[in-house]
Amino acid sequence: MPKEKIPLGAFPFIYPMPTVILGSEVDGKPAFITVSFIGIVQQSPPMVSVSLVNNHLTNKGIKQNQTFSINIPHTKMLAKTDFVGMNSGAIINKSSLFEVFYGKLENAPMIKEAPLNLECKLVEVLHPGDQTELFIGEIIQTYSSKKYLNKGYPDIRKLDPILFSITSKDYYKTGRKIGAAWKTGLRISSSRYRNK
Amino acid sequence: MPKEKIPLGAFPFIYPMPTVILGSEVDGKPAFITVSFIGIVQQSPPMVSVSLVNNHLTNKGIKQNQTFSINIPHTKMLAKTDFVGMNSGAIINKSSLFEVFYGKLENAPMIKEAPLNLECKLVEVLHPGDQTELFIGEIIQTYSSKKYLNKGYPDIRKLDPILFSITSKDYYKTGRKIGAAWKTGLRISSSRYRNK
Repeated sequence: MPKEKIPLGAFPFIYPMPTVILGSEVDGKPAFITVSFIGIVQQSPPMVSVSLVNNHLTNKGIKQNQTFSINIPHTKMLAKTDFVGMNSGAIINKSSLFEVFYGKLENAPMIKEAPLNLECKLVEVLHPGDQTELFIGEIIQTYSSKKYLNKGYPDIRKLDPILFSITSKDYYKTGRKIGAAWKTGLRISSSRYRNK
Repeated sequence: MPKEKIPLGAFPFIYPMPTVILGSEVDGKPAFITVSFIGIVQQSPPMVSVSLVNNHLTNKGIKQNQTFSINIPHTKMLAKTDFVGMNSGAIINKSSLFEVFYGKLENAPMIKEAPLNLECKLVEVLHPGDQTELFIGEIIQTYSSKKYLNKGYPDIRKLDPILFSITSKDYYKTGRKIGAAWKTGLRISSSRYRNK
């Protein structure tokens, strides 16, 4: 082991992660929760994963309806996004914070003011530990508004998502562009590293 | 549906995502691949997910050894990181790009110059589609160097990870801090939104 390397313990140090607001319907009413324990599963068919501690109302809603939504909030929505993460739906009526709309599915409530909405069908629920459920969902449709698009796709600068640092528990903006995939790597000579 | 909302099709639009270099040993030799289809599964026991298209050497290595590593590259490593994602280990000897070290596990090669290394034991392999495998791993140890730490934890400013935008295929830096979790939300009056 290189002598400068220090063991820090076992933590899921992958960050920053985008912070999203999960939507579901619990007993027929919209429920929302903030999460950054999420992941991309694959592109085709498009699937994502979201992890939730067992005791949330949202877990119940997702399992009841087999649907959920992922809403990507703008940094302007930071206070609301954090508020939704801090408070239980048992006490706070979180749906009164947002104007809600529905897409193809009838029970995946989405947030109008969020620049990007992903409508998901539940594919699988995993129980990786005693305390959490990992929901794998297939994205059946996504929604955005003209002002966030650039050549038909959401533009990260306009979307301005909220990033979360799991170690310091702070929120960050996306910074400047530093390169392009399958392009920046061309600076390295592949002949130099070819298998012998 | 609000009239400004435009359906964009079914895509896993969660971004930006951190870009990491996955390490495994294939037939006794270190192999590396760049991925940003990753996720946090849970904090305790700490688990992460990584998704790979089936045909990579890394898939074979992870299944052979039941271990892998996640290396978080610094933005200074951008060209190498992109290069590793562009080139197949069948042609390029990627391990010659990096100084490799090992931790507790004997076959999860880690990259010395990466500011943060996560050593993982395979927990489960899922097949969400025909073309990909989703690996769920438990993190058994993490490693960093003193220069990246702040109060015992990696500091996101010092770590300076690479973020990937799935729509534009561009890389970004982390931007400025905009708030603190469970604090910024206090700006909103909870009494206003209490359940009736």
